[in-house]
Amino acid sequence: MLPFLKMHGAGNDFVVLDARVAKLALAPEAVRHIADRRRGVGCDQLVIIESDDAGADAFMRILNSDGSESGACGNATRCVAALLAEESGAQWVKIRTVAGLLVAEILGPGLVEVDMGPPHLEWGDVPLSGPYDTLHLPLSLGPVSDPAACSMGNPHATFFIDDFTHLPIETIGPMLEKNRIFPERANIGFARIDSTSRVRLRVWERGAGLTLACGSGACATLVNAHRRGLTGRMAVVEMDGGELLITWAENGHVLMRGPAETAFAGELPGIF
Amino acid sequence: MLPFLKMHGAGNDFVVLDARVAKLALAPEAVRHIADRRRGVGCDQLVIIESDDAGADAFMRILNSDGSESGACGNATRCVAALLAEESGAQWVKIRTVAGLLVAEILGPGLVEVDMGPPHLEWGDVPLSGPYDTLHLPLSLGPVSDPAACSMGNPHATFFIDDFTHLPIETIGPMLEKNRIFPERANIGFARIDSTSRVRLRVWERGAGLTLACGSGACATLVNAHRRGLTGRMAVVEMDGGELLITWAENGHVLMRGPAETAFAGELPGIF
Repeated sequence: MLPFLKMHGAGNDFVVLDARVAKLALAPEAVRHIADRRRGVGCDQLVIIESDDAGADAFMRILNSDGSESGACGNATRCVAALLAEESGAQWVKIRTVAGLLVAEILGPGLVEVDMGPPHLEWGDVPLSGPYDTLHLPLSLGPVSDPAACSMGNPHATFFIDDFTHLPIETIGPMLEKNRIFPERANIGFARIDSTSRVRLRVWERGAGLTLACGSGACATLVNAHRRGLTGRMAVVEMDGGELLITWAENGHVLMRGPAETAFAGELPGIF
Repeated sequence: MLPFLKMHGAGNDFVVLDARVAKLALAPEAVRHIADRRRGVGCDQLVIIESDDAGADAFMRILNSDGSESGACGNATRCVAALLAEESGAQWVKIRTVAGLLVAEILGPGLVEVDMGPPHLEWGDVPLSGPYDTLHLPLSLGPVSDPAACSMGNPHATFFIDDFTHLPIETIGPMLEKNRIFPERANIGFARIDSTSRVRLRVWERGAGLTLACGSGACATLVNAHRRGLTGRMAVVEMDGGELLITWAENGHVLMRGPAETAFAGELPGIF
């Protein structure tokens, strides 16, 4: 039997496996089976907790539902931090990922804040295909234009819009994602500024399409909105799956605060 | 903690709860939470196994994901039969439902045949709104016409078609379902006869829309196809979620043979 936890944060859901003692080597077919919502357990991503030999509390590996490996995931980081803190009783948790070390603070039951590090604002770091001003990209399509861009470990562009009604995200999202200005493609955010401390966001994710919540997208949106003078350094970002509180701290780091919850515990039959 | 099994048959998936010893009274909100694929466990229906005091092995209660109660479900019957047989070692299992007593035979690991009883072919039993010939209903819409109707405990109409390409099921399904010829509405099947022993079927289910598999719809389709001389008394009915082998036995009963599988076991936190 393979024990697992089913967790979720802001509508993004995970099957979490503990491979700290017994190593786990999951074939892509096994990952796809576990992620199958009818025949397996069902999840957006599989999260594997491994031991870390360089001082972090754990190493976190993230597998997409198609079996491929993902760099990082803010929503999964909150879930794993909540688990590790519950084990140790610690308030602070250090989690290593392929994208680097993340530090998380437990603020209360099911509420976690992750230090997502500083945004990267230089064109070469997003990356863009040339020396454009990341605050105003020369890009427009249909009803949207003039996005700002930054990297939160992955490339983001934010279009500021007045209204989501009739906005054809599923048509323009995939076209914008692959625009030649983004040599590694980009996550495309559509943000409506409701006040200087509240933003409504929908994100077309690179390779994943419209998702219920994108943690790094929420961070990038607050950074770009603040650089444009549209919000303060702190705002609630409301996505389809829930809300995240994003702070661009004075030390330059972006803090993402949001929910991390366990739905249930389970055991898969022993075929892995 | 509330232990459960996650099971599936032909792409139709269930959370199965055992309430034979400790009774379970689930509020509709609890049902909707358990059925939520991201924040709960996720399923098409919740199946509650209760004790039966009239001689069956168990009473099976079926709750839809919106919290409402369902009359019967062939796919769930196979799953519960497989579970009860695994417990008792018996080859035959009797399951009572609000729609009557069902008898199932275990044919092998994960393969179950359920006696769905006889079809009802009289217009008043389907029911239809008047004394129409159930073999040829005066009903047509867009590219489809001349369906046959019968009841397998719930009303079914079968349109025989040549091709699924460009068939706008999601447009015509809800209109046909509510046609005034069906006073209690109807499940609308679209069947392509591939040979006298093989049928490709898609079903617009009354109240549920397009589903991956409809057990009683597969039975009704074989009955109507045989009455029209299009198939023999036995055929494989292929649906989006999998295949069922349907037999209209010489004693008039319809037998449905198909898969019943356990995905995993789990425990929900103790808030119920």
